[in-house]
Amino acid sequence: MEPSGEQSIRVRVRYPETDRMGVAWHGHYLAWFEIGRTELMRRLGCPYGELEDRDQVFFPVIEAGARYLAPARYDDELDVRTRLVHVGNVRVRFEYRLVRAEDDTTLATGFTVHAALGGERRPIRLPHELRERLTRGANPS
Amino acid sequence: MEPSGEQSIRVRVRYPETDRMGVAWHGHYLAWFEIGRTELMRRLGCPYGELEDRDQVFFPVIEAGARYLAPARYDDELDVRTRLVHVGNVRVRFEYRLVRAEDDTTLATGFTVHAALGGERRPIRLPHELRERLTRGANPS
Amino acid sequence: MEPSGEQSIRVRVRYPETDRMGVAWHGHYLAWFEIGRTELMRRLGCPYGELEDRDQVFFPVIEAGARYLAPARYDDELDVRTRLVHVGNVRVRFEYRLVRAEDDTTLATGFTVHAALGGERRPIRLPHELRERLTRGANPS
Amino acid sequence: MEPSGEQSIRVRVRYPETDRMGVAWHGHYLAWFEIGRTELMRRLGCPYGELEDRDQVFFPVIEAGARYLAPARYDDELDVRTRLVHVGNVRVRFEYRLVRAEDDTTLATGFTVHAALGGERRPIRLPHELRERLTRGANPS
Repeated sequence: MEPSGEQSIRVRVRYPETDRMGVAWHGHYLAWFEIGRTELMRRLGCPYGELEDRDQVFFPVIEAGARYLAPARYDDELDVRTRLVHVGNVRVRFEYRLVRAEDDTTLATGFTVHAALGGERRPIRLPHELRERLTRGANPS
Repeated sequence: MEPSGEQSIRVRVRYPETDRMGVAWHGHYLAWFEIGRTELMRRLGCPYGELEDRDQVFFPVIEAGARYLAPARYDDELDVRTRLVHVGNVRVRFEYRLVRAEDDTTLATGFTVHAALGGERRPIRLPHELRERLTRGANPS
Repeated sequence: MEPSGEQSIRVRVRYPETDRMGVAWHGHYLAWFEIGRTELMRRLGCPYGELEDRDQVFFPVIEAGARYLAPARYDDELDVRTRLVHVGNVRVRFEYRLVRAEDDTTLATGFTVHAALGGERRPIRLPHELRERLTRGANPS
Repeated sequence: MEPSGEQSIRVRVRYPETDRMGVAWHGHYLAWFEIGRTELMRRLGCPYGELEDRDQVFFPVIEAGARYLAPARYDDELDVRTRLVHVGNVRVRFEYRLVRAEDDTTLATGFTVHAALGGERRPIRLPHELRERLTRGANPS
């Protein structure tokens, strides 16, 4: 983890992520945010694939939002900076900042809120150990 | 236009729009919202493709958000219900409701805010005629 | 079914399906082909969702190919014309033609080959009834 | 370049690239192939973005194909191994092998054929310098 509690992962804008306006389509930012939280959870010792496959805990998105400040272009290198800002009994909230690596310009900010579901896809409380690990990695804004 | 000022278009959930959780991935909802506003603008006499190609007016998304209430599944038929809720000098705002056709359950709500850009991709005021047409079709919430 | 044994379904090119070259990205054609075979299987009385959920039969793609003859553009209406050209003991083959509705120009042709897998994702022979139904709808080229 | 003339770039399977079958959807392999040739062209001194923006040379896909040997799963690390196998006057052909990094299993093979187009999107001969550079990096199979 970076000192700030923010985790950073680099992605490069793919050709099919651009649209006819010549810039990255706004919906793909949600895929980049997803990469950000995947890497943050891996660092916190809770790889998301294991959560689903071994523990039958699922974290569907129940709310998402983004502000687009400047366009991302084909082949740009972007840093997805992710923080876990809230860990509740049944919900967690991540916040994201997307930064163009070349000049450190912030291209977008965003957030996602997730509910915990169990094997039957019914709401559950976060398992104790998972909640502990996430809370230790959280970085309230 | 429906009496309510809400425009509805049906889509069917495609196989590649599902993810390993067995439901539609949350980012694809932004593509469905985009279909909703494309059809609404067509109805209002401002097909978006013409706007870009003939008038050199672009409407990039500068803010977007969604709440996910219930999952959409493979092969579900969904109605995207779109309203244009604000037409300003330089920005417009659309709101969306995604409804499962089979039982009229609302699966998600969302919004997008757009800025008008000109041929050089610089901010412009909405051209007069476009603003008139959009305003006539607007349906403030 | 059309007299020719070819099944046709219309799609419209979505904004995020375009790329910075200003035309539809070539990988999305595979999603359109998938819509084509989904609709063909529905017509043949074997809706693919039921196959997976009720019968635990899966049809992953083991080979795919496409030739791109002319570009598809944003908002174009396209007809995906699908035929089932081979039904074997363990494999089936579909062929596709993508036609621009406006002027009946063929934009692309393609094919997919599928293997039948069972609940454990191991190869199986096509269940008898399924094979019968598919064979009746097949249209060898 | 690796001694073999094969260029390798690593990608990780993203959550939205999986489908309800629990594995990566077959169409996304074309996006990974595209990353492979983007990196190969960068290594050969012909970054594709520059080709389009500075030289007005476009390389649309006119044919593509893939064989799927074993599934790619969420969070798998994959190596896209790309070779440029043919450089003609007006066409080039790339071949791809997708390998799971963990155990070096080949998951898929594929190819794409590209035509050169100029600024008006009309067919052109490959510019001399570009052809020279590509030919030096080619690795006929």
